[in-house]
Amino acid sequence: MRASQFFIATQKEAPQEAELPSHKLMLRAGMIKRLGSGLYSWMPLGLRVLRKVEAVVREEMNRAGALELLMPAVQPKELWEETGRWAVFGPQMLKIRDRHERDFCFGPTHEEVITDIARREIRSYKQLPLNFYQVQTKFRDEIRPRFGVMRAREFVMKDAYSFHTSLESLQDTYETMYQAYSNVFNRLGLKFRAVRADTGAIGGDGSHEFHVLADSGEDALAYSESSDFAANVELAEALAPVAARGAANETMREVDTPKQTSCEDVAALLGITLQQTVKSIAVVATDEAGNTQFYLLLLRGDHALNEIKAAKVPGLATFRFASEQEIRDALNCPPGFIGPVGVSDQVKVVADRSVAVMSDFVCGANKPKFHLAGVNFGRDLPEPVAVADIRNVVAGDPSPDGNGVISLCRGIEVGHIFQLRTKYAAAMEATYLDENGQKQVMEMGCYGIGVSRIVGAAIEQGNDERGIIFPPAMAPFAVAIAPIGYDKSEAVQSAAHALYDELTAAGIDVLLDDRGERPGVMFADLELIGIPHRIVIGDRGLKEGQVEYQPRTASSAETVALANIVSVIRQAL
Amino acid sequence: MRASQFFIATQKEAPQEAELPSHKLMLRAGMIKRLGSGLYSWMPLGLRVLRKVEAVVREEMNRAGALELLMPAVQPKELWEETGRWAVFGPQMLKIRDRHERDFCFGPTHEEVITDIARREIRSYKQLPLNFYQVQTKFRDEIRPRFGVMRAREFVMKDAYSFHTSLESLQDTYETMYQAYSNVFNRLGLKFRAVRADTGAIGGDGSHEFHVLADSGEDALAYSESSDFAANVELAEALAPVAARGAANETMREVDTPKQTSCEDVAALLGITLQQTVKSIAVVATDEAGNTQFYLLLLRGDHALNEIKAAKVPGLATFRFASEQEIRDALNCPPGFIGPVGVSDQVKVVADRSVAVMSDFVCGANKPKFHLAGVNFGRDLPEPVAVADIRNVVAGDPSPDGNGVISLCRGIEVGHIFQLRTKYAAAMEATYLDENGQKQVMEMGCYGIGVSRIVGAAIEQGNDERGIIFPPAMAPFAVAIAPIGYDKSEAVQSAAHALYDELTAAGIDVLLDDRGERPGVMFADLELIGIPHRIVIGDRGLKEGQVEYQPRTASSAETVALANIVSVIRQAL
Repeated sequence: MRASQFFIATQKEAPQEAELPSHKLMLRAGMIKRLGSGLYSWMPLGLRVLRKVEAVVREEMNRAGALELLMPAVQPKELWEETGRWAVFGPQMLKIRDRHERDFCFGPTHEEVITDIARREIRSYKQLPLNFYQVQTKFRDEIRPRFGVMRAREFVMKDAYSFHTSLESLQDTYETMYQAYSNVFNRLGLKFRAVRADTGAIGGDGSHEFHVLADSGEDALAYSESSDFAANVELAEALAPVAARGAANETMREVDTPKQTSCEDVAALLGITLQQTVKSIAVVATDEAGNTQFYLLLLRGDHALNEIKAAKVPGLATFRFASEQEIRDALNCPPGFIGPVGVSDQVKVVADRSVAVMSDFVCGANKPKFHLAGVNFGRDLPEPVAVADIRNVVAGDPSPDGNGVISLCRGIEVGHIFQLRTKYAAAMEATYLDENGQKQVMEMGCYGIGVSRIVGAAIEQGNDERGIIFPPAMAPFAVAIAPIGYDKSEAVQSAAHALYDELTAAGIDVLLDDRGERPGVMFADLELIGIPHRIVIGDRGLKEGQVEYQPRTASSAETVALANIVSVIRQAL
Repeated sequence: MRASQFFIATQKEAPQEAELPSHKLMLRAGMIKRLGSGLYSWMPLGLRVLRKVEAVVREEMNRAGALELLMPAVQPKELWEETGRWAVFGPQMLKIRDRHERDFCFGPTHEEVITDIARREIRSYKQLPLNFYQVQTKFRDEIRPRFGVMRAREFVMKDAYSFHTSLESLQDTYETMYQAYSNVFNRLGLKFRAVRADTGAIGGDGSHEFHVLADSGEDALAYSESSDFAANVELAEALAPVAARGAANETMREVDTPKQTSCEDVAALLGITLQQTVKSIAVVATDEAGNTQFYLLLLRGDHALNEIKAAKVPGLATFRFASEQEIRDALNCPPGFIGPVGVSDQVKVVADRSVAVMSDFVCGANKPKFHLAGVNFGRDLPEPVAVADIRNVVAGDPSPDGNGVISLCRGIEVGHIFQLRTKYAAAMEATYLDENGQKQVMEMGCYGIGVSRIVGAAIEQGNDERGIIFPPAMAPFAVAIAPIGYDKSEAVQSAAHALYDELTAAGIDVLLDDRGERPGVMFADLELIGIPHRIVIGDRGLKEGQVEYQPRTASSAETVALANIVSVIRQAL
């Protein structure tokens, strides 16, 4: 494509309302234009990127045996009433009334429509399994649309729906989709992780989210660089330390901590590490008969309580934090100085796995303005009634799958796969006849990819102060030719055109910047829009038979013989 | 594609509500499924066809220099108020209110949105001309949706919008689009005509409709087989006969026509052709001062009055048909026997061009139960006050462009190109700075193709009692392999797979019918869904190294050596 025949409309500044880097950069690069709240036009430059993502998604879905179809965006209310979701879906669903006063919605998702197709088209077990997908415009009336295409109201989604005679068949297709999704994100050149997820509003059993890793993500993830392990931080297991508890070397003693009520302050005062301190969290659990029980939950000073995990400890299913009065009643001490030593047998002590292996530690003394040091289980206090994983993982923890250590990051959800089971099929009576001629309800899975969101997520992952850094598979053009003095030098112009023709003939997406802009403007534009490879052609270099080549991720250019540049580019791609 | 891994769901009968062949056949072939009134899902088979159409449209638009973008389907009311179309568009526009009670519509067209983009993005004459297009789902809330995808409410449209500094530039792009549209329909293998059209609701100057020719079309067209001439029947010119008026050979005489009030009946009674009769149509025109004038419009017996043309005759701008009383008052004769001979000079006689060259003709005698024969202008009555083209063309008339003769047919509108001029740009203040730094309003064109409608139109044009006959460029698969006894014969199975692999490797879209259906079912399905080429492989033929090849349009198969079939297919494609 020649830039003069294309539409490049970059901007120096992004509008104020853009918060995220991807939103700012997509607006500045002229990839999208805002039409209204959560409504964006994909300009030619942006659409090239979107289409490349779509193409990869389609290829991998087709390869996985899914069949593409296209369902209407507008869906009748009656179908949604069959599953009860017309009332449940809430104001995110854009409701429409047609000229005959009949109710419809602009589809936020298509379970009802595809299940309606399935129940009318599928008669026999011989037709199953089937996996249908579409790439389609959807609408969700977000209360506060933001982040550009990352949380737009109108967006492009790939949604797939599979139908089965058995859970085993569903799980097979689920695995196939898991692999297809991994292929999609790998091919797009994105750093991503699949995360086991709660199923949320769509319902059913078994579900994974696919997250692109980026600092601006809404979800906190724990992952291993050494494997494909990933989990929501809240659900990631903190393994028990491998090392056994050390021997008790110190004598337990009171230390004066007049104003130090936090582990941080105590450690600072004593000149020790946070890892040598133990914090005691007082909680109250109520059993089914309504009896209350006071607990102390022990965590290492540098760890944070994970309430979801703690609630899984027997007896703690429904716990709450103790009030100051309850703490004083149970321990005869105000918060800030409480600890597990010397407590009555009415107080149950639960230790996190990390605490259970500590020796000579520091904790509250149950005496105002004092802590205890050199504390040891078995000698100074009984062993805890339970030892369990009750903390959030932290960076550096061993990965639960045994490979490497945990890193923490944030993730942008770009895909989600679900085992819906029979939720929709049962509600809508989507049945088939089995081998014995018996009616059976279909098992069902669904699989979504936020196609337009991927573009934003990729930019969140790849950008610098100069602009977007697209992975090559998503870039609007693979290569840019930047001629210096295009309008003035015939030599430059003809070399640029010859190179353009040669690269184009090799099937490479090339942008020839023939606008005649000054080098500074030209380079800034090409960097902003994220073209992975740039070739600069100038009179001076041409005299030596040379051009300058610079990958977008490099900080400087290298000189390459004009005769070799095509093979350099081919190798780079 | 192997049929066992695809989704083929044909039906013997189409639902009652389907009227048109294309609607019936698309439902029977399982190309589409109805979701609601005017709402259809494109099933995998149908979507393959739709995508092939889309691909050709995109290729030709790109080749014509248009730039693809993608605008939102949901559009804010405010933009439509700027052009006044929010109120004007009427109930065809599906209006939507979002959760914040703001008004939107599901876009029926995108002039407002693209003009908004243009006014914000285009600053200078240097950026023009530009031609943007999209392939997008649109919604028009038809009061009575019908004919399947031909008049659906939700449909796929290619809409393009161009912006210019001058009418000349607009006309250039208009010509380019005219050619691109012709390329699209030619490449799709459709018999079509471009017809000069009224601009209707979208407004502006200069417009052509592109019609696929088919008996079921809504528009009556006149076209020449010998050229690309085509026009709405109502607008097609009937040329003046080349032959001069013949000499008067007969004497004028009264003929007894006791019950014969029509030219047909008179011709039958007298044993002459309709072409020898003249009918007189009495009309009354009113001038600006309110004075009325009685006219007789003379047409040959086999011709029909074209009111649009007649209204262009000076004095007839606002005419109406005369009442029986007015006829009796003017001619002293009841309708059925009136004619131009012997009328008072208060009656003005206008002759169609065909009548003006007649001699020795038959017309009413202005005397109940009598006609006149052997009538001649100049001798028996004065020359008409005007001779003009006031009739509809008929089949066999010379084509107005001088090439061949007129055929009549019906057309399905699948494309429409408009010179909008400044209608939208002026209303929305879409301006640019010209070479002198002066603000100027942009000239604008728009160009639509009914992408999904094309599929229906192609089937209207190509079908027989066995089903759909797709042009090869649109067929879901180019070739079908139909193995006889697939489940029983290893030889058949392996030959079928080998051929499938060979054709697939050659880049040909093949459907291998490996469902193990009986030949009758298999052939019926393959013919119904319109696959252009069928190869039947059976044990008997294989023993001789032969297969049967039958194009969809042929009535019988031919025997081809298995070794030659690939080259036969390549040649056929």
